Amino acid sequence: MNDTNDATRRGFLGAAAGLLAAAGSAAPALAKTEDLVPAATAGIEPFWGMHQGGIATPAQRHTYFAAFDLTATSRDDVVKLLKAWTAAAARLTQGHEIEPFEQTDLAYSYDTSTTTTTTSSAAPTETKTEAPDSGEASGLPAARLTLTFGFGAGLFVKDGKDRYGLAQHRPEALVDIPHFPGDQLVPAESDGDLSIQACADDPQVAFHAVRQLARLAEGSVQLRWVQSGFAPDFGPGKTGRNLMGFRDGTNNPKTSDPKDMDAVVWVGTEGPDWMQGGSYLVARRIRIALEHWDKMNTAFQEQTVGRHKGSGAPLGMKNETDAFDFAAKDKDGNPLIPQNSHVRLAAAETNGGARILRRAFSYNNGAGFTAERWPPWRQGIEYDAGLFFLAYQRDPRTGFIKIFENVAKFDMMNQFVTHVAGGLYAIPAGAASGEYIGQKLFSRA
Amino acid sequence: MNDTNDATRRGFLGAAAGLLAAAGSAAPALAKTEDLVPAATAGIEPFWGMHQGGIATPAQRHTYFAAFDLTATSRDDVVKLLKAWTAAAARLTQGHEIEPFEQTDLAYSYDTSTTTTTTSSAAPTETKTEAPDSGEASGLPAARLTLTFGFGAGLFVKDGKDRYGLAQHRPEALVDIPHFPGDQLVPAESDGDLSIQACADDPQVAFHAVRQLARLAEGSVQLRWVQSGFAPDFGPGKTGRNLMGFRDGTNNPKTSDPKDMDAVVWVGTEGPDWMQGGSYLVARRIRIALEHWDKMNTAFQEQTVGRHKGSGAPLGMKNETDAFDFAAKDKDGNPLIPQNSHVRLAAAETNGGARILRRAFSYNNGAGFTAERWPPWRQGIEYDAGLFFLAYQRDPRTGFIKIFENVAKFDMMNQFVTHVAGGLYAIPAGAASGEYIGQKLFSRA
Repeated sequence: MNDTNDATRRGFLGAAAGLLAAAGSAAPALAKTEDLVPAATAGIEPFWGMHQGGIATPAQRHTYFAAFDLTATSRDDVVKLLKAWTAAAARLTQGHEIEPFEQTDLAYSYDTSTTTTTTSSAAPTETKTEAPDSGEASGLPAARLTLTFGFGAGLFVKDGKDRYGLAQHRPEALVDIPHFPGDQLVPAESDGDLSIQACADDPQVAFHAVRQLARLAEGSVQLRWVQSGFAPDFGPGKTGRNLMGFRDGTNNPKTSDPKDMDAVVWVGTEGPDWMQGGSYLVARRIRIALEHWDKMNTAFQEQTVGRHKGSGAPLGMKNETDAFDFAAKDKDGNPLIPQNSHVRLAAAETNGGARILRRAFSYNNGAGFTAERWPPWRQGIEYDAGLFFLAYQRDPRTGFIKIFENVAKFDMMNQFVTHVAGGLYAIPAGAASGEYIGQKLFSRA
Repeated sequence: MNDTNDATRRGFLGAAAGLLAAAGSAAPALAKTEDLVPAATAGIEPFWGMHQGGIATPAQRHTYFAAFDLTATSRDDVVKLLKAWTAAAARLTQGHEIEPFEQTDLAYSYDTSTTTTTTSSAAPTETKTEAPDSGEASGLPAARLTLTFGFGAGLFVKDGKDRYGLAQHRPEALVDIPHFPGDQLVPAESDGDLSIQACADDPQVAFHAVRQLARLAEGSVQLRWVQSGFAPDFGPGKTGRNLMGFRDGTNNPKTSDPKDMDAVVWVGTEGPDWMQGGSYLVARRIRIALEHWDKMNTAFQEQTVGRHKGSGAPLGMKNETDAFDFAAKDKDGNPLIPQNSHVRLAAAETNGGARILRRAFSYNNGAGFTAERWPPWRQGIEYDAGLFFLAYQRDPRTGFIKIFENVAKFDMMNQFVTHVAGGLYAIPAGAASGEYIGQKLFSRA
């Protein structure tokens, strides 16, 4: 059995090496077996461009996010990895598998002393052109897959060490996120040197993509933490509801409005050239105490959020898109939208105009033992579910950090939510065809 | 703040009590607020009938499975719970929220000493008819939701105690599943006295349903373990691929063929009356060592499975639905389909005709630290993903147990898969309108 495994592992590593070698040439030829052609061309998002996909892209239904620690010891190896990832991402997002290659030699290299071999009449032509792709997305459409690559602080400096000669290029905006009141970020499930956000309308397509990229990166990275998420389709033009039952995302910047995106999301000339057209991603796994939330009556929930649950309208208003009237008072002279409600504390008006692009998903990690943080302090198995908060901004210091300083201190919602994992990642500009993601950074001395 | 919580908790408990009281009358009137009407009537599965839904129902895209321990001390409380669950399930599966009720009194019962109240001009009519439903499925279609209730051994006897006077009615077929070679079932994530399998084409709809049922059951149950899963749509008439990249489910009994279903799935006159038209569910969370599997070349994977990866055809055949030829030999006289391949060991031919209805989903629980079970015994963060195996059968002794005894010992696939959670549940017959699930069992002396 060991012989078998060794033989096939050599086979795989050979294949992977071939891929890494081939990855330098962008947009490879798209030959593939008939069975592996995705359905039609519907739902394909562009890969090459001045911005990476998955930011301004209309939100997909599923995400799979992964953060990695770099184990590569040389800058060249990191460049090789980013070239391979770029080439593979260009294929995957277009509904193709990772680089196919002639596997003839490999397919028959395992130990022939086992019960049988495929050099028999077992239709050997079927395996001949099989790609190194793991195959579970074969037959699925591209499902609007986007792959968005990010650089954590550890790419630039790790444990005080400038591993890749990049320390001087760490952007000022890629700060160490301060600890906020209530933060319970688990270190093993936070940060990471590299990140990949895969979004698609199908969960298997999203996971498949990260899985292939992780395989290509073997020997250069170690998986650190991952999170999947979902965002159901509530219908055209409708704002979805998160697990709190409230509409979520009403006040987001318009991704179709370049002015909004330039103002809120894309790094401009204030950043280094490789970040211009890029952004900063704050990721947070926010566990929601759903059992606790569900005990609150609707009126209390509405006070906490600052919106009506049914319509999504700001308190005191009729329609979801009505503007907040933070000055409005009830007959007793109290603010209609409470001082400690979520929408008031998170609003641009309250935070000197600070805005972020939220690209949030719900997550469901099952259930686990929890000691509740609120009376009557029950202990038991409770849902490990909530919000996988992904937010893009031009500068986290004037975006998430500015807003969350306020929210973390005062938001009435905090008794129901706990930030348990997360990270900040510099999302470099997109790549033009023939370039690789991050090329301008690595071209610097 | 404590006052606030207490007040609302009382409010909620009042509501829940009302629901439990109302649950005795089946198929309640379906009044609801305009905002909460689900889109159209498409994709609604029937609830009432001789079989529970979610078994012969064409497989949905998502599942959320939950097992509970009963904490109820009296048989009456269990009956009350099952009545409430039945009434709520009848509503939820039809795309409605759980029983709406006039919440006027409750909506304003929290502590008015907080910053504001909704007795202000904050459109109080909006909260008036708000249901106790948590709301996150409001605006989503029914998404073919089915809810399938099961009874674990613990309902009949727990720690040697006949808590509800049901011990004598435990069906013979509801055995204690034996330990199989390689089983690593975590006790805290296995078994349970009651189970709910929610399946829907939307993950939020499935979770929403279990969440409402769990809320109704508060005080009578404690959540034990849960698992969500997904099964992408590979297109009409196509067999989906699981995370191993292979087509999965080709040889399943035809759910549209009553003869097949009677033979394989539905309990007949050999069982107690309350089980006739019911079935037995074996649930298993099967972690797949994807990183290990991905290192095997395609030919080795095909030998392990016994099918071609691309087409899904049995080894040596051209088409997915071609019959196995287990007698076929290659030119060296070796079996074309290896003796230790998965399909040969799991086939009815190998197991005295034993068959089960598989209703499998893939699962993705993120990633976690793992010590690999194979050379070179690496340790690190690896995917916690694989197959959430749900299988229905007329009798587990002649179904799963019979097949798995064989598979667990010899299957070459075992080096890649580990059963880490699971349970066996008696799935009672469906309920006619006006009955509750399990009524015939509880009507016995």
